Amino acid sequence: MTTFFKFLMYLTFVTMLHKTTAQKIAFAIHGGAGTILRQNISEQQEKEIKEDLYKALKAGYEILEKGGTALDAIEIAIRILEDSPLFNAGKGSVIAANGKIEMDASIMDGKTLRAGSVAGVRTIKNPITAARAVMEKSKHVMLTGKGAEEFAEMHGIEITDPSYFFINKRIEQLKEAKESEWRGDNNILYNDHKYGTVGAVALDKYGNLAAGTSTGGMTNKKFGRVGDSPIIGAGTYADNRSCAVSCTGHGEYFIRYTVARTVAALVEYKRWSLKKALHYVLFEELLPNGGRGGIIAVDKNGNISTQFNTEGMYRAWIDHKGNYEIKIYE
Amino acid sequence: MTTFFKFLMYLTFVTMLHKTTAQKIAFAIHGGAGTILRQNISEQQEKEIKEDLYKALKAGYEILEKGGTALDAIEIAIRILEDSPLFNAGKGSVIAANGKIEMDASIMDGKTLRAGSVAGVRTIKNPITAARAVMEKSKHVMLTGKGAEEFAEMHGIEITDPSYFFINKRIEQLKEAKESEWRGDNNILYNDHKYGTVGAVALDKYGNLAAGTSTGGMTNKKFGRVGDSPIIGAGTYADNRSCAVSCTGHGEYFIRYTVARTVAALVEYKRWSLKKALHYVLFEELLPNGGRGGIIAVDKNGNISTQFNTEGMYRAWIDHKGNYEIKIYE
Repeated sequence: MTTFFKFLMYLTFVTMLHKTTAQKIAFAIHGGAGTILRQNISEQQEKEIKEDLYKALKAGYEILEKGGTALDAIEIAIRILEDSPLFNAGKGSVIAANGKIEMDASIMDGKTLRAGSVAGVRTIKNPITAARAVMEKSKHVMLTGKGAEEFAEMHGIEITDPSYFFINKRIEQLKEAKESEWRGDNNILYNDHKYGTVGAVALDKYGNLAAGTSTGGMTNKKFGRVGDSPIIGAGTYADNRSCAVSCTGHGEYFIRYTVARTVAALVEYKRWSLKKALHYVLFEELLPNGGRGGIIAVDKNGNISTQFNTEGMYRAWIDHKGNYEIKIYE
Repeated sequence: MTTFFKFLMYLTFVTMLHKTTAQKIAFAIHGGAGTILRQNISEQQEKEIKEDLYKALKAGYEILEKGGTALDAIEIAIRILEDSPLFNAGKGSVIAANGKIEMDASIMDGKTLRAGSVAGVRTIKNPITAARAVMEKSKHVMLTGKGAEEFAEMHGIEITDPSYFFINKRIEQLKEAKESEWRGDNNILYNDHKYGTVGAVALDKYGNLAAGTSTGGMTNKKFGRVGDSPIIGAGTYADNRSCAVSCTGHGEYFIRYTVARTVAALVEYKRWSLKKALHYVLFEELLPNGGRGGIIAVDKNGNISTQFNTEGMYRAWIDHKGNYEIKIYE
């Protein structure tokens, strides 16, 4: 009887423990990192940016609270950021050298390691939703250009006229970038503009992680250049064994250092904390070699870390204790 | 005097040690993995395949022997395999659903972690050379489609009429794939054809590693599908701190499992041997989830491992002791 009682106690304990760990939810988003200086952003602009970050954070978190999946949470949050003209993704994307807006996005499911990505798409209203369709409705991971658009249309994803994405600010930025290029000052692309990307990472109550990233790329980009956002392992990675990661920054560096995958590898193979892994990659690997940007990540226990080696990063999160923050600077 | 003598001895020892370790060279190539069954390959075919593998192996290794760089060795070897109609890369590439040949390639320098890649190119005679130009002559890592072709042309890289790449066997294979698709038998793409890719990994006498991969992709591919070959961290990775890796296989799995980067991470972070790392990724990560293919890798000490979870892989190598092998089956 005593043994039976002990066993019951044990079962209750295990169930409780399982419930506590499995029910933790956590959510984080970003809207890009870079040279974000207080003097360049008006109070009104800051207010608007924070409002849209809040809207995206809230929408994603509510899904998690109601028992929705990490994938649903990140998709809805990224759609809101894509629809906002304030971020470089979806509406408000930066313009390539050819005068077109060419967007990239990717998504990854930490439970199954399935992933989907689209690159160089011009007509898909919400590239993150197309990336998810690639993951769930194709045998492929990465589709590009017109082929990706054709696939999205076949699957009933909203297609829009390319003019929808254009906003005046980006037209000005392209002009400015082209002028500085003619002057021979190539650094403007890297130093004077923020690295625009949006992204989200989530842990749902089933213990599943997911990550997603979406971007309009780089102002004045040429030659069909693809950055890190649609590259699994570079801009996006998620694995239930370690963490979910979304990056924003000078894409070329994030590809070469496979940043998202490296963070996950350090957490899984070296058993580093998320905080230590992000700090190492940003400040020991990227910065000494000239790579600038930011990372948001959530681990399987609901710990969140958001770090950057630039002046600022638009970011917001709610951790597994329910604490939330919306921040731009350090 | 004794101390001085000891110091001299020490210096000599260190110099000798450095020389011995730094002068090790090693080289490995592959020409794809998959359902390669003895009954499907005639003696004549086997002989021709082995001859071309030998040509590529020899050309790359001679460069290393003469004090050339790992990058030069892998570029020349991959060019030879691209020029051979026997492998799915360059001439002899498989054909996409739209009747076009769309090729991908990537290269990475383990010393600097610089990388270059082209995806979906139709007119570049040697995509590996274009990938190297992207690495060395642009600020970017990945260029796609017509933009990549324009960039290559600007840098004097040989452009050819798309008809150059077509061979009869591939036209037959596309017909066959389309017919099996109409019958609703989608598996033919994955099960009945080898995963065609070529690749090379090298350690030069300066202790630098490099890796490269090139492919025509997948017969009957659609929607601008991109596989693992042009993705840094998936099909290709090199880092002097660990190893150089080139993969061939069902690309979607190699992207999701960031196979090349995972091998390097296991070697660097877990201090696993190359052999253990390749075996783990192929048989513990990929195979149970349905991912099939092969990996070749060389580590910073000149150890080589070539493994696959398919019936065969075209491969050849010369290790740091000068031992060489050209193999198709286990």
